[in-house]
Amino acid sequence: MTTPHGIIDTPNFVGVGTNGTLKALDNATVQKLGLQLMFCNTYHLMIQPGTEVVRKMGGLHCFINRSMPLITDSGGFQVFSLCHGSVAAELKRSGGKARESHVLRIDEEGVLFRSYRDGNKMLLTPESSIAAQKDLGADIIIPFDELPPYHITFEDLKHSLERTHRWEKRSLDAHRAQPNNQAMYGVIHGGPVLSLREESCCVLRELPFDGFAIGGSMGKTKEEMRSILQSTLPLLPKEKPNHLLGIGDLASIGIAIPLGIDTLDSSYPTRAARHGLLLTSQGPIKVEKAEYKESLHPIEFDCDCTTCQQYSLGYLHHLFKAHETVGLTLATLHNVRFMVKYMATLRKNILEDKI
Amino acid sequence: MTTPHGIIDTPNFVGVGTNGTLKALDNATVQKLGLQLMFCNTYHLMIQPGTEVVRKMGGLHCFINRSMPLITDSGGFQVFSLCHGSVAAELKRSGGKARESHVLRIDEEGVLFRSYRDGNKMLLTPESSIAAQKDLGADIIIPFDELPPYHITFEDLKHSLERTHRWEKRSLDAHRAQPNNQAMYGVIHGGPVLSLREESCCVLRELPFDGFAIGGSMGKTKEEMRSILQSTLPLLPKEKPNHLLGIGDLASIGIAIPLGIDTLDSSYPTRAARHGLLLTSQGPIKVEKAEYKESLHPIEFDCDCTTCQQYSLGYLHHLFKAHETVGLTLATLHNVRFMVKYMATLRKNILEDKI
Repeated sequence: MTTPHGIIDTPNFVGVGTNGTLKALDNATVQKLGLQLMFCNTYHLMIQPGTEVVRKMGGLHCFINRSMPLITDSGGFQVFSLCHGSVAAELKRSGGKARESHVLRIDEEGVLFRSYRDGNKMLLTPESSIAAQKDLGADIIIPFDELPPYHITFEDLKHSLERTHRWEKRSLDAHRAQPNNQAMYGVIHGGPVLSLREESCCVLRELPFDGFAIGGSMGKTKEEMRSILQSTLPLLPKEKPNHLLGIGDLASIGIAIPLGIDTLDSSYPTRAARHGLLLTSQGPIKVEKAEYKESLHPIEFDCDCTTCQQYSLGYLHHLFKAHETVGLTLATLHNVRFMVKYMATLRKNILEDKI
Repeated sequence: MTTPHGIIDTPNFVGVGTNGTLKALDNATVQKLGLQLMFCNTYHLMIQPGTEVVRKMGGLHCFINRSMPLITDSGGFQVFSLCHGSVAAELKRSGGKARESHVLRIDEEGVLFRSYRDGNKMLLTPESSIAAQKDLGADIIIPFDELPPYHITFEDLKHSLERTHRWEKRSLDAHRAQPNNQAMYGVIHGGPVLSLREESCCVLRELPFDGFAIGGSMGKTKEEMRSILQSTLPLLPKEKPNHLLGIGDLASIGIAIPLGIDTLDSSYPTRAARHGLLLTSQGPIKVEKAEYKESLHPIEFDCDCTTCQQYSLGYLHHLFKAHETVGLTLATLHNVRFMVKYMATLRKNILEDKI
């Protein structure tokens, strides 16, 4: 894929930099690791520092010092998560009581909510989300959509899908009313219901989106995710790129890439690093295990990252045991580099007909 | 000063890397910043990972990946702080109740205490401190000394000083019984009492230490510190280097360097960075102040650190407001580089007879 800020080789992993930075790694370092696309969250940047501040500072690339491609979401996912919690939390709760909501009103216009920072009321609509994403200026932007709760009737899910389609159309109109060099991906919804997923593809592929993202609930299991992707991807235009939202653990990558996913984002590698889980080609290892206490080996012998080039597993073990944040930084650096190299291997395997 | 791991230009600032790393900065980065001497704490490294582990891993330089000089302390300061709290905490308390002690016994042999990590009993003596410091292998080591409480009678302080002198002699003997290429600094004590400080100099300068450190309580005010240094430094051999322990804020540096201090260590620049206090030649600035929200300027225009070269004050402000640990790393990097350059300027001023 070619963007105003450079090429993205596909399939590829997209790092999550919610507040305009990956957790524990500065952007110059992230660029050196070769991460070609970074995902920032509009909701968080609206609240801090405010998207108009980012615009005044020259846009998101300039503000955060990244010259390579960026993608932003609509803010919808976070604002609806405030309302009914994350899907994971909801599944754990099994449909029980939702946590205290900061969402004041949801209607056809959009969502009225209170900022968790200063208590100010904020209105998120298709038009305001696109205005915010134009302030940020990412290479790829996402239309405003509704994230329905996982426990929902078929009728309610269908109504939510239809509203999402209307919101996506309004988002696209707002985007095209002020054309710039940003690309917009439509977001396929329909939750775990295959017929609704297919309907979503058929409706949205008729609109002039530049690509498509797969959003909403992908079910409880990897097999459900596989079914959704199997029934969705063949209905999307082959010449346009697609993106799987918020899923990027290695097992899911192993399912999604052979089915045709081009890019996927996840905080898994960075979050895993902060919990001392180091990714290797032999599987993840827990750095705090006693067996690494006196290890003079790097995480991986053939890894070219500066962590592996400079520090032993024994020292990383010590940094985690001593609660030094440097350990999180060094582990994150390795895990991100691992993902970059892992995706390069997948691309090679595709070219060699091994996938 | 020339050490087995390279030259230390004096006067110089010594960064504090308690657990074998400065807070929030990895050692390869710290070396690139030009920090010529780093201070590690034997007490912390005894407890995690254990000095015998560090020895097996090839010594502290190898373990933490630092090729430049290191200095370790004896562990005495920390173990006595466990007993009666830090001097600062004690001054706040004005002689009130001490916090719960983990020290089980103090006698002529040394100190028996419980590890805060696993509850194991540990004995710290002049001999065991030196053995630990030989495991670590820093370029400069420190004899075991007693840190008396600030609120103490003259008689008790005098007895403490005499015990410290006996412990330092035992430390030196233990060091010289296994000669290696480490240097040992005697530690001048005597608290805020000038006559005892002078006595300490007269006793310790007769022993074959390679240099001298000024330890213990330096009084409540900067003027008290000045008096202590004024009565101490002229009594120490001019041809041997000296070090001021645990004091390195800019105001104290301004007093200590003209009086002849060669090196001083402090966690001030790194701790200040974590609190959003950025050091500049115009004085420290608070990055979280609203006036920096939209600043496109670097912390300092003429600073060559990678933070100033790559990121604006506005972005640093945002990282702190968003509680991203990357902000702490970037701020620490700048503050350490500031100290390195600040000391170079002081050396230049000395050579030009401005100090």
